[in-house]
Amino acid sequence: MVNASNQSVKSAVQSQRPAGLPPDDFAGNEPSSRERTERPSQPAGARSVEGRLLARLLEYFGNPPLEFVLWTGERIAPPGSVTVARVRISSRATLLGILADPQVRFPDAYSEGRLEIEGDLVQLLETIYHGGRGGPRASAVRLLIERLRRPRANSLTGSRENIHHHYDIGNEFYSLWLGQTMAYTCAYYPTPATTLDEAQTAKMDHVCRKLRLRAGESVVEAGCGWGTLALHMARHYGVKVRAFNISHEQVAYARSRAKSLGMASQVEYVEDDYRNISGRYDAFVSVGMLEHVGVENYPQLGDVIARTLGTSGRGLIHSIGRNRPAPLQPWIVKRIFPGAYPPSLAEMMRIFEPHDFSVLDVENLRLHYAQTLRHWLALFEAASGSVREMFDEKFVRMWRMYLAGSIAGFTTGALQLFQVVFAPRDNNDVPMTREHLYAR
Amino acid sequence: MVNASNQSVKSAVQSQRPAGLPPDDFAGNEPSSRERTERPSQPAGARSVEGRLLARLLEYFGNPPLEFVLWTGERIAPPGSVTVARVRISSRATLLGILADPQVRFPDAYSEGRLEIEGDLVQLLETIYHGGRGGPRASAVRLLIERLRRPRANSLTGSRENIHHHYDIGNEFYSLWLGQTMAYTCAYYPTPATTLDEAQTAKMDHVCRKLRLRAGESVVEAGCGWGTLALHMARHYGVKVRAFNISHEQVAYARSRAKSLGMASQVEYVEDDYRNISGRYDAFVSVGMLEHVGVENYPQLGDVIARTLGTSGRGLIHSIGRNRPAPLQPWIVKRIFPGAYPPSLAEMMRIFEPHDFSVLDVENLRLHYAQTLRHWLALFEAASGSVREMFDEKFVRMWRMYLAGSIAGFTTGALQLFQVVFAPRDNNDVPMTREHLYAR
Repeated sequence: MVNASNQSVKSAVQSQRPAGLPPDDFAGNEPSSRERTERPSQPAGARSVEGRLLARLLEYFGNPPLEFVLWTGERIAPPGSVTVARVRISSRATLLGILADPQVRFPDAYSEGRLEIEGDLVQLLETIYHGGRGGPRASAVRLLIERLRRPRANSLTGSRENIHHHYDIGNEFYSLWLGQTMAYTCAYYPTPATTLDEAQTAKMDHVCRKLRLRAGESVVEAGCGWGTLALHMARHYGVKVRAFNISHEQVAYARSRAKSLGMASQVEYVEDDYRNISGRYDAFVSVGMLEHVGVENYPQLGDVIARTLGTSGRGLIHSIGRNRPAPLQPWIVKRIFPGAYPPSLAEMMRIFEPHDFSVLDVENLRLHYAQTLRHWLALFEAASGSVREMFDEKFVRMWRMYLAGSIAGFTTGALQLFQVVFAPRDNNDVPMTREHLYAR
Repeated sequence: MVNASNQSVKSAVQSQRPAGLPPDDFAGNEPSSRERTERPSQPAGARSVEGRLLARLLEYFGNPPLEFVLWTGERIAPPGSVTVARVRISSRATLLGILADPQVRFPDAYSEGRLEIEGDLVQLLETIYHGGRGGPRASAVRLLIERLRRPRANSLTGSRENIHHHYDIGNEFYSLWLGQTMAYTCAYYPTPATTLDEAQTAKMDHVCRKLRLRAGESVVEAGCGWGTLALHMARHYGVKVRAFNISHEQVAYARSRAKSLGMASQVEYVEDDYRNISGRYDAFVSVGMLEHVGVENYPQLGDVIARTLGTSGRGLIHSIGRNRPAPLQPWIVKRIFPGAYPPSLAEMMRIFEPHDFSVLDVENLRLHYAQTLRHWLALFEAASGSVREMFDEKFVRMWRMYLAGSIAGFTTGALQLFQVVFAPRDNNDVPMTREHLYAR
């Protein structure tokens, strides 16, 4: 048994305290040891108006064990304050923004350098996620706010814009921290010592084994990223692959790699929407696309899969998910993934139920995604100088926040990772057991 | 890869043609070879009124490849009739009953000997299940009929009556055909050669491994049948078990077995409803009870599990299910399992979502249930003389229909078998991979 939280790549997310701030007794701490420091905060009676408002907000978030230091030097910590990190807020305007819309303005303020975090960023975000489960009062208000924010629709045009926003910012940038495979989805770690590249390859094999790919078969892939899985299936399992993607940059990269490896006749990359998939295939696979589809389009995705497989074949969908329906963190939707939504398992069934697909196997890999993200964040930090040169400091801090927040999402169970294997109802040509997945 | 449909225990379900009927050329066939006989049926113009009505009904069921022989000698078969079995209907009254309510009256007529089947009963039922998927016309009418039949509610009293109806008809009867383990749920077949008893034991180990049981832990079981799993967990995994069941006969049997094995201090059988479970446990397990709970009670079951596990621990629910919501076959509900309902995966999520449980693993074992049922049916046929003495011929035929129909349900994908492993959202003390399930 492996407890993923013991494998943090902690060094990557420490010491983001900028040079401009005075040193203090926190700086020498090793936050990864989960060592907690007991310190008195301002007595409640002596607090400023801002301090009292912030204390209210922290109460709303379940009083996470964090100490806040205002621009005046005033310190605010929850009652019985055993804190795991310190947050310095640089101005009244920054604080008021956070009070008005904490879920968006807190990470924005961090990105823009108007807020500094001392201690382990991941651990800080984990405490907020834990606290943020909140009481009924908190969640009712939050759900209302979140429902008022309608994400950009995933129509054919909307999807193109949403995908362009995230995936077309530069293959060179992604190559700095995704590792050799350029796989931008949850990897699979058979052991705690598995490296990122090994784990991405293990993930691809895990998917191929789950699909029972046999030489000579045809596979269609919906949302193929930089094309690595399609290549892997063709090279190692002898199948023919048509892989769809609407990210222009990714398709260009994938085609060039397939050509240079002499695989262009086995793998065809199509720059088009999954809704335009045609033809019949032995297997349907989609790894990390469903998050961008939108629940309202699940029945249509089911139609595509049904006409793709007919009454035989197998399918696999790999997606970030939820324990129950909830919108994605609003800052992530606004700054990182417009139009994204991780579904609950019940919501995913809207793909399968109308066509009577049998769900054969569901595996939850959330701790694997936490580990994948730790590896990405470590590489990202190591390359942050290059990223700063490509973009700017704000971009570096925004992506650090996004990657660290995602780790916290998976370690606290706010996010799940579901791999779902399915087949048409009549297909009895499926393995009796899953033992073959684990055969050496 | 094992194709379960090749492993039929065919001999068990053949030759149920009673002595009273004249021999014909069908009798010498070997139906299990899927050999089909081409034979002319009555030309449509020459059909009687009854014959034409029957032909209509068969069209409604998608024209299954079956030949019907009426009491007059008139033969009705679908167009292009390649038939897999023959059905003899003994009287006009029987036919009119079937025409009025085929799903209930067809198996009733078989049970009462007013209808005879020549050929493989399982294969016949499989063709009906396949055809019965029907067009939109058929399913709309059928869904309406099925919705008008409200099952007996699974209130505390209703559940007791429902469970008493099926499980309290005699431990001696069940011991004739369930094998040594007295496990009356889907077994697990690691290989095609696995015997029933081996497969039931393998299922129990599969469940215990999925739950990661450790010596000294406490387990609560909801719906424990004759108590075999509870005993197995205590004896082989060193855990303490409290097992709940409202079947008086089963609890009496379980207690006596635990006592005779000197396990009474490790396993406590409680004759009570799952809703009355109290206390905290490391694991929650329920194998084959959910079918009797009713969707309307899933949130309450979720409450029971949540207070049982708190924020740690693991759980497993094993249940017959569906690819999409649909009522259970109405004859089965009426004659065999009052109040029963196999849920879709999305419906099962109503247990887990309100308490933010993470679903870790879902395995679909439907082909294992088909194999389990083949083994049960073979033992049942071998013991049919004793069953007839205990009850009567009608009972034998009714249970043959139920077991054969269940095989057909699982081989055609009308029924699924889901094993769902889950844990409270915060629990990171779960295995990273499922490899330990398959370690030798």
